[in-house]
Amino acid sequence: MALSKKPVTGMKDILPREMEIRDYVIRVIKDTYRTFGFTGIETPCMENIENLTNKQGGENEKLIFKVLKRGEKLDLSTAQTEADLSDLGMRYDLTVPLVRFYSNNNANLASPFKALQIGPVWRADRPQRGRYRQFYQCDIDILGEPTNLAEIELITATTTCLGKLGFKNFEIRINDRRILKAMASYAGFNEESFDEVFIILDKMDKIGLEGVKEDLISHSFEQSSVEKYLDLFKGLEEHKKDGLEYISKTLGDSLDTEVKEWLDEIISSVEAAKAAQFDMVFDPTLVRGMSYYTGTIFEIAIPEFGGSCGGGGRYDKMVGKFTGQDTAACGFSIGFERIVLLLLEQDFKIPDEGKKIAFLVEKNMPSERMSTIMKEASDMRAEGNIVLVSRMNKNKKFQKEQLETQGYTEFKDFYVDSLKN
Amino acid sequence: MALSKKPVTGMKDILPREMEIRDYVIRVIKDTYRTFGFTGIETPCMENIENLTNKQGGENEKLIFKVLKRGEKLDLSTAQTEADLSDLGMRYDLTVPLVRFYSNNNANLASPFKALQIGPVWRADRPQRGRYRQFYQCDIDILGEPTNLAEIELITATTTCLGKLGFKNFEIRINDRRILKAMASYAGFNEESFDEVFIILDKMDKIGLEGVKEDLISHSFEQSSVEKYLDLFKGLEEHKKDGLEYISKTLGDSLDTEVKEWLDEIISSVEAAKAAQFDMVFDPTLVRGMSYYTGTIFEIAIPEFGGSCGGGGRYDKMVGKFTGQDTAACGFSIGFERIVLLLLEQDFKIPDEGKKIAFLVEKNMPSERMSTIMKEASDMRAEGNIVLVSRMNKNKKFQKEQLETQGYTEFKDFYVDSLKN
Repeated sequence: MALSKKPVTGMKDILPREMEIRDYVIRVIKDTYRTFGFTGIETPCMENIENLTNKQGGENEKLIFKVLKRGEKLDLSTAQTEADLSDLGMRYDLTVPLVRFYSNNNANLASPFKALQIGPVWRADRPQRGRYRQFYQCDIDILGEPTNLAEIELITATTTCLGKLGFKNFEIRINDRRILKAMASYAGFNEESFDEVFIILDKMDKIGLEGVKEDLISHSFEQSSVEKYLDLFKGLEEHKKDGLEYISKTLGDSLDTEVKEWLDEIISSVEAAKAAQFDMVFDPTLVRGMSYYTGTIFEIAIPEFGGSCGGGGRYDKMVGKFTGQDTAACGFSIGFERIVLLLLEQDFKIPDEGKKIAFLVEKNMPSERMSTIMKEASDMRAEGNIVLVSRMNKNKKFQKEQLETQGYTEFKDFYVDSLKN
Repeated sequence: MALSKKPVTGMKDILPREMEIRDYVIRVIKDTYRTFGFTGIETPCMENIENLTNKQGGENEKLIFKVLKRGEKLDLSTAQTEADLSDLGMRYDLTVPLVRFYSNNNANLASPFKALQIGPVWRADRPQRGRYRQFYQCDIDILGEPTNLAEIELITATTTCLGKLGFKNFEIRINDRRILKAMASYAGFNEESFDEVFIILDKMDKIGLEGVKEDLISHSFEQSSVEKYLDLFKGLEEHKKDGLEYISKTLGDSLDTEVKEWLDEIISSVEAAKAAQFDMVFDPTLVRGMSYYTGTIFEIAIPEFGGSCGGGGRYDKMVGKFTGQDTAACGFSIGFERIVLLLLEQDFKIPDEGKKIAFLVEKNMPSERMSTIMKEASDMRAEGNIVLVSRMNKNKKFQKEQLETQGYTEFKDFYVDSLKN
């Protein structure tokens, strides 16, 4: 019976070169967060379908790979809808599984709980270049820490990790949903229209101040509010260095003074502890799409990328929606696939790989000599080298060239007639 | 909307303690095989359903989690069978994906190709204690190496890996399908009944020589063949040390002399190169279930386990069934979940973990002091320590006890009134 050689549509085989980089990135991530007291967790790749379709997942809920019911549970003769056919689904992110995990295992977890998850997620998206239906996410979360120590640790750990991966001169942009709201309120927008305003504000990067202004007006917001709102951002452009100070003074009573102190403390603590080259920037135009954020929000911008390569924020109300009990929560999601892609494109060399040595053994080597050769290989491996033992091909020159493309730099030939050696 | 807290039936959440051990075992495996020139690969967790249902998977094909078709492809009104509803399935092992991967990417792979795969597989088995519907497999294969160098490298690498994980005094049992067949043929069984004979022989461990004899007779095999067959095994019991020599002499022309040399060379080379404490044992009763094996077969027996904790063999005809072109192949599957379980039960301590230090910071610490504390934590982490920065609880004694259970052995308290420090 013929086998289809291609992987499932929209998914990909990972070849040795990319795999080396993925393994390396995973190792750096695990090692780094470990030194901050984070512990790894893992949940099954499938969740009960109800957990995936409760509106927390937004658009992603339309992209679920659903799993067919099994055995007697599947009754084709009476099935009317997809819901009759499927009881499980592939997870589309790591947030829903984390919250379920936390509510299931809370009694056996440290408090606060510092979790690291790396694993595949699935989305039945329209296949397109560079975007796959199975891809890895990497989430780091602190549950049960109400103070900004969570933000400080998350940002310090994440920037340390990026530094170890060789990234320099990147930016951490930070803002707070409370500042976003205070600015909109100060300008005179109604609270019900905040989300609409923020969606437009989020385009600032692409369409600029004037674009945002036109867009707001075309959405029938009052001219006076739009003007007042835009004046805030114009003022901020003139206060790049002390934006937080400026906005706090300008907003006056509209903004709780605690919010400024909260962000100031995060920025100064992260700056003090930093173990990588990056800038920490207050960015009042930073919105972050998900409406579940309740406080601080942040994003990583690496110049080599067009856009962001990860971000996160505080979401103190989400766990409670599931468990009935509010739990302070703050998380970071790192753009694992983008980082791997960038390192691949840069032809990244993994540090401290050890020497790569190839033994080429002529055919029909007597058993005793073979034993000696294997012993020599073992000894060299024990010293930390990579030793490939391979049969010598007739075209030895071509064989060595091939091995060189795999990174082998030293060769040792073993002939049956040992005088040839 | 209520969330179900439990993971999907038959699957499990992995808590920090187990996760540490899993990560450690994966790291030792990857590091060890890497020094032998193996490279990691990964395939999607789903395969096209036809690839999973072509009879190579045996009983596992009945246990597939199938994925519902999506969008227009799913037509409930005309669907008659499961096949109309599902186009993809979750992989139930790593062998089918490896063969597909190899036929898809052969042109871009080294030859011979030494592959390492670790990842989850799914089987909709009846849930039972210690057996899960999602679990990890770890497969190591060499494709394109027709000589016994493949066996030598696989067994040496695998035993080195087990040694690094702390296992001692285990056994590698080795046999060859060609010996199994020669013994059955010598006794006078028909070739068509070999598989039936081997299934009974495979029970030797449990039912002993007499049990095997009775079972064979009850299956209506000729008394004379059964007697002659059993005499071989009785003779072997008296030749524990030189079983291979004995069987080769006894079988005479029934066994190709090359087979004895083939196994002798594997055993002597592995013995010479060995970097762990284990015995290499010729075991003529070793069968290994899968009928796709064509030559050498082997199994790991660790005394702490009741039975085997991995095994494998040569399967030179399988790749060809898929690609139309025979490719020499030999592989090893390590019982990843059993190893993790054993280490967990032994309360295994991960070596070289670094010191675990907890900073306890009193509430309302001024921003400047907070920065200094974070800097100190960063410096200690850079030295390889694990530093947890935590808010000081009112009941500090209880907090420290909790942290001690997580492995924290050093504590440093930071008070707002620094004189208290």
